[in-house]
Amino acid sequence: MKHISRISAQTWLDHMRRGRGQRQTCYAMYSSIVDAITTDPAAMVVPVDDHLVHRGDGVFESMKCIEGAIYNVDSHLERLDKACAATGIDCPYSREDLLETISQTIHAGGRRDCLIRVLLSRGTGTMSVDPSLCKRPELYVIVYPFPDRRLRKERFPARVGISRVPMKPPFFATIKSCNYLPNVLMKAEAIERDLDFVVALDSRGNLGDGATESFAVDTTDKRLLAPPNDRVLVGTTLQRTMALAAKLVESGDLKAAEYREVTPFDAQTASEMLVIGTTRDVLPVCEFEGRKVGNGQPGPIYKKLLSLLRSDMSSNESVRYLVYKQDVNTHDDHA
Amino acid sequence: MKHISRISAQTWLDHMRRGRGQRQTCYAMYSSIVDAITTDPAAMVVPVDDHLVHRGDGVFESMKCIEGAIYNVDSHLERLDKACAATGIDCPYSREDLLETISQTIHAGGRRDCLIRVLLSRGTGTMSVDPSLCKRPELYVIVYPFPDRRLRKERFPARVGISRVPMKPPFFATIKSCNYLPNVLMKAEAIERDLDFVVALDSRGNLGDGATESFAVDTTDKRLLAPPNDRVLVGTTLQRTMALAAKLVESGDLKAAEYREVTPFDAQTASEMLVIGTTRDVLPVCEFEGRKVGNGQPGPIYKKLLSLLRSDMSSNESVRYLVYKQDVNTHDDHA
Repeated sequence: MKHISRISAQTWLDHMRRGRGQRQTCYAMYSSIVDAITTDPAAMVVPVDDHLVHRGDGVFESMKCIEGAIYNVDSHLERLDKACAATGIDCPYSREDLLETISQTIHAGGRRDCLIRVLLSRGTGTMSVDPSLCKRPELYVIVYPFPDRRLRKERFPARVGISRVPMKPPFFATIKSCNYLPNVLMKAEAIERDLDFVVALDSRGNLGDGATESFAVDTTDKRLLAPPNDRVLVGTTLQRTMALAAKLVESGDLKAAEYREVTPFDAQTASEMLVIGTTRDVLPVCEFEGRKVGNGQPGPIYKKLLSLLRSDMSSNESVRYLVYKQDVNTHDDHA
Repeated sequence: MKHISRISAQTWLDHMRRGRGQRQTCYAMYSSIVDAITTDPAAMVVPVDDHLVHRGDGVFESMKCIEGAIYNVDSHLERLDKACAATGIDCPYSREDLLETISQTIHAGGRRDCLIRVLLSRGTGTMSVDPSLCKRPELYVIVYPFPDRRLRKERFPARVGISRVPMKPPFFATIKSCNYLPNVLMKAEAIERDLDFVVALDSRGNLGDGATESFAVDTTDKRLLAPPNDRVLVGTTLQRTMALAAKLVESGDLKAAEYREVTPFDAQTASEMLVIGTTRDVLPVCEFEGRKVGNGQPGPIYKKLLSLLRSDMSSNESVRYLVYKQDVNTHDDHA
């Protein structure tokens, strides 16, 4: 074996810039470690002694900026608060501070359409598991492109199966922590089984979460059902979709839109099944556990909900937090 | 809110060096990202798009170097192999390569007594959950000091309680992944409840793991019992201790040393209860769930096992992997 070279931080930086400078995974990053924003990929790093790195000891949110405004940001930050409370991470930032930091990081990224990851970690200080030895929570805000649909290889409409990965206990399933290995393995399972998504079953055998998506079904008697939030993560886009579905109840397209336990049988006999999430919006499902859902084609409820959701995203100012107050020059490679 | 400054990687590095250069959390670090070792704290970082950071998508081992030799390294690397197989992380290094990288990183740290963390991550490449989009697994080896006993505040003998944190499903409990939030919360719980350790109960109500420790009990009829490995992590130090306990069976101090389900009742009525782990070796327990264990004092089995373990660590060459082949000058602040 060769002798491994010993390098200074300066050389490390040079290596990083050579090796990674061209790969633009992220547009911009804020780090509370240095209390600054960078657009240099070589500086987009986290100290190895941050408990986020060696324990997954942190919480997060993924949100999106659409046409210059963060969508549904209050729901995301509310969920972040809950995750902090559940894990005992004492977020040192007010909601206003967080919004301002997020906005400035989006600005630095220079895109009107992008994704935003907010990571709040237990902090740095030791390689141990003990949270009381950390100095203070650290905040990382990362602004990055929407995924390339070609890389994602998901079909339309989607094929869904029941996951074989054991579901997290409810306490952990209902908080968005950085312990996402079960979710990673669900994504790997979907690929392995030539499915587009898999959904976990909870301890009672009812539908739970996907790897990073929520699920809902439209029954043959026109009820839109989504799993209640006591054993699954509160899906922010699911919540918006269920709220918007009230309009379809008004118009008579649906009889009800309600949070209720959804059995695999409900999914197999549904008129439509939907995948719902921040990066996917709403997707129709053509197949569940190898059986056709409805007629196997995108259905009318899917189409109406997608249309309502898209219009909500681009023009409902009550759920759009404006990042770009006026027209500014931004890069033109946005998604 | 102030305007957050935008900085280059160079300025980031300067900030880091000013802010963190004096805090020696770690002695040395190898990173496969740059394929080099550094002793500069400012360079001990992981790219934020490594899935280890934002998903906890990685596996790890914590081992120790005692008097210039890594203790029990085969057991650790075997467990790492199992974790890789379970999570589908395809470790690109042979055992020899890993040992050589670990050795050179220990050398760079310059201590004959230290702890070693081996982190193997899914890799960098995206902010998504999808493991198939990662470029390749990345290896980080971190060499760091034994914890300061004063900071740890653990009493001797130790007080132990049953944890209220939900235990991981067996599939995840038996692999050492970087999803350690339940373990973190167990440590926090122990501190909160003025205990030194808490132990999880498995789905049948039997003793499982601690936050980062194993447990064993010595029953009144002189049987040393430790939980079987199908629902708890294989404890490397526990395994050595159970193997060494065979000598106490030979000598008649014990009737048996066996892996068998341990009930809370077994613990409450035991002559002795032991906490066992890489950084703690063996510790006696004086109190379990508020009731005195045995006579509340360190017992004879504890003393004999600790002595056997200490001697195994310092002189059993079959489980000592020599890092320092001959006497070399090392720093003198080792633990």
